[in-house]
Amino acid sequence: MHIYKRMTEKVVIIGGGAAGPKTAAKLKRENPNIIIEMYTDEQNVSYSACGLPYYIENIIPNIEELLVRSPEEFERHGIKVFLRHKAIKIDKRNQMVVFEKLTTGEKLEVYYDILVIATGARPYIPDIENVNDFNNIYTLRKLEDGVLIKNAIKKADTVTLVGCGYIGIELLEAFIKNGLKVNVINNHKYIMAMFDDDISRQIQEYVMKKDGNNINLYNNQYAVRFEGENEKTNKIITNIGEEIESDFTVICAGIVPNSEIAKEAGLKTGVSNSIWVNSHFATSYPKIYAVGDCCEKMHIVTKKHCWLPLGSTANKEGRCAAINIASNNCDFAGVLGAAVSRYFDYTVCMTGITEREAKELGYDVITTTVTKEDRAGYMPEAATITLKIIVDSKSREILGVQGIGTGDAEKRVATVSIAIMNAVKVDEFMGLDLPYAPPFSTAIDPLLNAINIIQEKLDKNIK
Amino acid sequence: MHIYKRMTEKVVIIGGGAAGPKTAAKLKRENPNIIIEMYTDEQNVSYSACGLPYYIENIIPNIEELLVRSPEEFERHGIKVFLRHKAIKIDKRNQMVVFEKLTTGEKLEVYYDILVIATGARPYIPDIENVNDFNNIYTLRKLEDGVLIKNAIKKADTVTLVGCGYIGIELLEAFIKNGLKVNVINNHKYIMAMFDDDISRQIQEYVMKKDGNNINLYNNQYAVRFEGENEKTNKIITNIGEEIESDFTVICAGIVPNSEIAKEAGLKTGVSNSIWVNSHFATSYPKIYAVGDCCEKMHIVTKKHCWLPLGSTANKEGRCAAINIASNNCDFAGVLGAAVSRYFDYTVCMTGITEREAKELGYDVITTTVTKEDRAGYMPEAATITLKIIVDSKSREILGVQGIGTGDAEKRVATVSIAIMNAVKVDEFMGLDLPYAPPFSTAIDPLLNAINIIQEKLDKNIK
Repeated sequence: MHIYKRMTEKVVIIGGGAAGPKTAAKLKRENPNIIIEMYTDEQNVSYSACGLPYYIENIIPNIEELLVRSPEEFERHGIKVFLRHKAIKIDKRNQMVVFEKLTTGEKLEVYYDILVIATGARPYIPDIENVNDFNNIYTLRKLEDGVLIKNAIKKADTVTLVGCGYIGIELLEAFIKNGLKVNVINNHKYIMAMFDDDISRQIQEYVMKKDGNNINLYNNQYAVRFEGENEKTNKIITNIGEEIESDFTVICAGIVPNSEIAKEAGLKTGVSNSIWVNSHFATSYPKIYAVGDCCEKMHIVTKKHCWLPLGSTANKEGRCAAINIASNNCDFAGVLGAAVSRYFDYTVCMTGITEREAKELGYDVITTTVTKEDRAGYMPEAATITLKIIVDSKSREILGVQGIGTGDAEKRVATVSIAIMNAVKVDEFMGLDLPYAPPFSTAIDPLLNAINIIQEKLDKNIK
Repeated sequence: MHIYKRMTEKVVIIGGGAAGPKTAAKLKRENPNIIIEMYTDEQNVSYSACGLPYYIENIIPNIEELLVRSPEEFERHGIKVFLRHKAIKIDKRNQMVVFEKLTTGEKLEVYYDILVIATGARPYIPDIENVNDFNNIYTLRKLEDGVLIKNAIKKADTVTLVGCGYIGIELLEAFIKNGLKVNVINNHKYIMAMFDDDISRQIQEYVMKKDGNNINLYNNQYAVRFEGENEKTNKIITNIGEEIESDFTVICAGIVPNSEIAKEAGLKTGVSNSIWVNSHFATSYPKIYAVGDCCEKMHIVTKKHCWLPLGSTANKEGRCAAINIASNNCDFAGVLGAAVSRYFDYTVCMTGITEREAKELGYDVITTTVTKEDRAGYMPEAATITLKIIVDSKSREILGVQGIGTGDAEKRVATVSIAIMNAVKVDEFMGLDLPYAPPFSTAIDPLLNAINIIQEKLDKNIK
């Protein structure tokens, strides 16, 4: 692989969400003389898309609060920002990108010495009849999507969510908080189906116990047709003929990478059509890097390529790619799929792989699930958490953990993340010295308790 | 070393605080046939001493809530409990302990096959003139201490704390919450002097900014004489002649191990007179183990013996010792000194060693201190944390971290604990995949931000 040390050249970045701006900012710090141009087809750069559900919920009053850095801030640091410029073609032989200026339709050819593709991902739109025929079907990805949905709430009594993963459950909270009745069409046994069934069942039970009066849950089915008139849909028909009425619809059925431009340029793609990169974020073609949601990841546990696009990962990748462009010495470890969300006071989080995934991959797994108070039971703030630990019985390494509950499950999942990254065996975990005081944890932390049980199971060969 | 596999013998445990009961309970689960007798000079066994400040503060209404397991519960599991029995001599050649029954003065000789010393620690009483002459000078260690101090508050307007470490700051909160004026005599530059000065200064500033009107702080001095009459002291004279008046006094100037009985029996002692043990908790003499606050620890970072007695450690040690007594295969990794406390909404926590300790030990350290919001700044619950990271510039391993602030510093310190245990280098840390969502953290966690800065300092050799 070619190593790029001479850096008075021009770096062109396509994309202004998280990974692109991070690459630009870090690269400028690494080498202030470098010329950086960042292009985005949006009206904004560098914003926190993850905050949108809380804007919709009204926890965040102004959408401007989600802006991390303005184009002017980038310009002040010597990074040129081009808004409303859509990349339409990469001419890799001539080191050019063709952009369309969306305001005028004008085409621009932009030369690069190094290109960074940070085009992100977009909502996946399932193949539902008439899905494109109505203007009250939304997705949530960009700032303007958040504004549209927030406006839609004002005129609505009911809404339908198509899909119920991390974004779905956050929107569910936002809608319930705003007094809407919510239909959820979820083509899985339970909501939050990225968790193991025993965990997602508990999440669903909590949600339905709390707000079941205002939620109609349509599990194990999928939308096949939208019906309506005057550009508004008011009815969704599902595969089993269920007719679901509501004032508007949000599709949150996953995302797909914006990798077409890379694919058309002949760059190698991988899992889920994401752009193949090596551990330095170099693509299959010289002088072109890819970072963030558009590119493939390496899974630390499975050691396989995967596509787990997450905002925190995008930031880390941008930083690492910038270091590589400047000096080529940042080897990215990969991802665990560590993620967290909440439904009001109820946290749901995970890291590593699930029991289901582990079994599919052929691991001989031992699991345990403990439900404990998250701090000393006599403290008024004590609350319950459930931790499910998945361990490879051969290596005795932790493969994953799932945490749920009104207590602080997230801290334990964060702690396990670093254990998994370092292939820590359950036996080494037993003595883990964690900070303890009654307002923060229990004398034997629930996590250690779970690990102890796993260790006993392993030693006694109990499945 | 002798390995004890045959376990229909009798195990005698001296001590009923945390490590003793944990050893008993785990050992009984490991081998239900074993005969276990647990002796304590107190009226209770198995209670959470760490909860006492919150009982005094009135957060916990009834002291019974601090009882983890009653003597009856132990008896039901086949563990004999002897309350108010003080061990006065170990006859190691004849495998006997002499106990004094405190209710009658009667002496008992008790035979053991295996002895577990879990005698804990007691408050350190500085050499202050008249310290033993008044009945309104308290310490906080046992349940009855908590009751005495809670009663003392009722008749008092002012109190003096001698010392201000973890227990001191928790008592300070309890006293302020109960409307007392508090004098603090602290023979250090700042309160919470186990932290580095730059951190303890910030802790002190927070405390004094919040409640300075009701706190008189006497730093850099120590008590030399108590004065008073009718068995009540109302005045403390310090080494620089300061006269400090109050209705009662609590001495929280550290603890010392209850190791005299072991020392008199000829067992090897170590740091701070604690009982020497190997990584299996065997003492220097066959068939005698020691666990919990009375025994020496191995520091994971410094690889040196130390004495860092903490409740969470005591529990882990009890468990590990029990496994060794039953089957001899639990090797204890050691301690990091991970600890946490809080002053109202302000968390103070640390793990590993401080910059001061690192320098004393000859490390060439690089540190960084970052102050950041603990979650997305636009979330209403976002609060500030300050993290100080200490790294060995040679090995690039993290030696310690200190965290303070109204935000969730403790989660970050817990995460680093496992990194230190596994000698994770800062370079490996950069890609750490932590769960992220706006209510829980920032896209680049403050911890990763601090690590990134350290890495840059290391690479550019900035001190």
